[in-house]
Amino acid sequence: MTDIIEGRNPVIEALKSGRPISKILVNRNIGSHQTVAAIFSLAQERGIPVEYVDEHVIKRHSSTGAGQGLIAYAAAKEYMSLDDLISISKEKNEPALYCILDGIEDPHNLGAILRTADATGFHGVIVRSRRAVGLTAAAAGAVEYVPVARVVNISQAIEILKKNGVWIVGIDMSGEMDYSKMDFTPPTAIVIGGEGKGLSALVKKRCDLVAFISMKGKISSLNASVAAAVVMYEALRQRSK
Amino acid sequence: MTDIIEGRNPVIEALKSGRPISKILVNRNIGSHQTVAAIFSLAQERGIPVEYVDEHVIKRHSSTGAGQGLIAYAAAKEYMSLDDLISISKEKNEPALYCILDGIEDPHNLGAILRTADATGFHGVIVRSRRAVGLTAAAAGAVEYVPVARVVNISQAIEILKKNGVWIVGIDMSGEMDYSKMDFTPPTAIVIGGEGKGLSALVKKRCDLVAFISMKGKISSLNASVAAAVVMYEALRQRSK
Repeated sequence: MTDIIEGRNPVIEALKSGRPISKILVNRNIGSHQTVAAIFSLAQERGIPVEYVDEHVIKRHSSTGAGQGLIAYAAAKEYMSLDDLISISKEKNEPALYCILDGIEDPHNLGAILRTADATGFHGVIVRSRRAVGLTAAAAGAVEYVPVARVVNISQAIEILKKNGVWIVGIDMSGEMDYSKMDFTPPTAIVIGGEGKGLSALVKKRCDLVAFISMKGKISSLNASVAAAVVMYEALRQRSK
Repeated sequence: MTDIIEGRNPVIEALKSGRPISKILVNRNIGSHQTVAAIFSLAQERGIPVEYVDEHVIKRHSSTGAGQGLIAYAAAKEYMSLDDLISISKEKNEPALYCILDGIEDPHNLGAILRTADATGFHGVIVRSRRAVGLTAAAAGAVEYVPVARVVNISQAIEILKKNGVWIVGIDMSGEMDYSKMDFTPPTAIVIGGEGKGLSALVKKRCDLVAFISMKGKISSLNASVAAAVVMYEALRQRSK
């Protein structure tokens, strides 16, 4: 299996992580960017062939259409099991911090959420194995650093986490408490719903608490990666104190 | 001029705002979602024709490739001038709160930033007129509610804002202060750099202060819309106290 890694930052992160990469395709008109120069030099160091192609070749292989003139072919990244993820975070000896994605289907959003999870010290991200988006494309850079577990059933995963002493907090407009008033210092998993749909009723029922993100304007929902990030950074802010 | 509005939430927001829409195209296999049902009923109320088409027709007209099975054709939205934007926020009689985008080129990110700006009570978003992304597509829903000014030169716009008593805060990894330690209660404009590039050197020099968002992991930059959202929600949190 091959993953296609798209865009300058994901490619540079994959290169830095040492992940096996078979080839990099670059738009012949990409111009000179600092990141592109860094990619060339890392690829050369590691002996990875760089091929110049027309933009339409990049577009054709890009699953998001936003390859930023650059894609890389890498060995497919394996998902882990929920058990693996739980043991990894136990080894860290910190109160667990997970993000559960209940049906995020946009690879841009998954990518942005994985990057934020890395930045905020979350121990892992849990995704549903069916219908939810794969780990390729936009997400591929970040998945180098953030453990991702794939589960068949989110509700079951929530029950397993609860048995491991993890407090489950759904994030939804219907929530009963402002996210910023919550205590994120105990072991916690936040649950983020899919774009434009929010949390599914079944999943919401399993949450220990549902929190909302206050919205002052007229729009009724935030982008899923934005909602995740706002809560994740609040968790980091509280835990940094 | 016509804007193409893509995706369920942007389309429903455009419908609710009363913006002129000439036609809605829907994937004939879209299935039954609550939002889709709401779109049908709003379109019917307003006498807007809904046409069922194959998914590839949606994909062909979608600029992001993520139309979620649904696009609408609307009268193009006009940008405003910086002066207009400043007078709008003066009328509100609140300390100004702007977001300046220094080269955001991804329509997903622009859309997510406009939605967040609405949700956090920002008075407007300022974008560069060249190279930066247009207001169509993902952004089109949110632009109904958030004033967007287009300027030829970001540095000049910053000088004009300074003359109007606005404190300019760049957000960049090279910043000297954690964003969460900043005071967002005076009139403030935050400046967000482009994906993978951060703030340009010229713009950074004009900022009164450059703040960073702490990152605990290995990845070196956040998604631009995530960075914007984290700071915008901190501003809202402080101003809600």
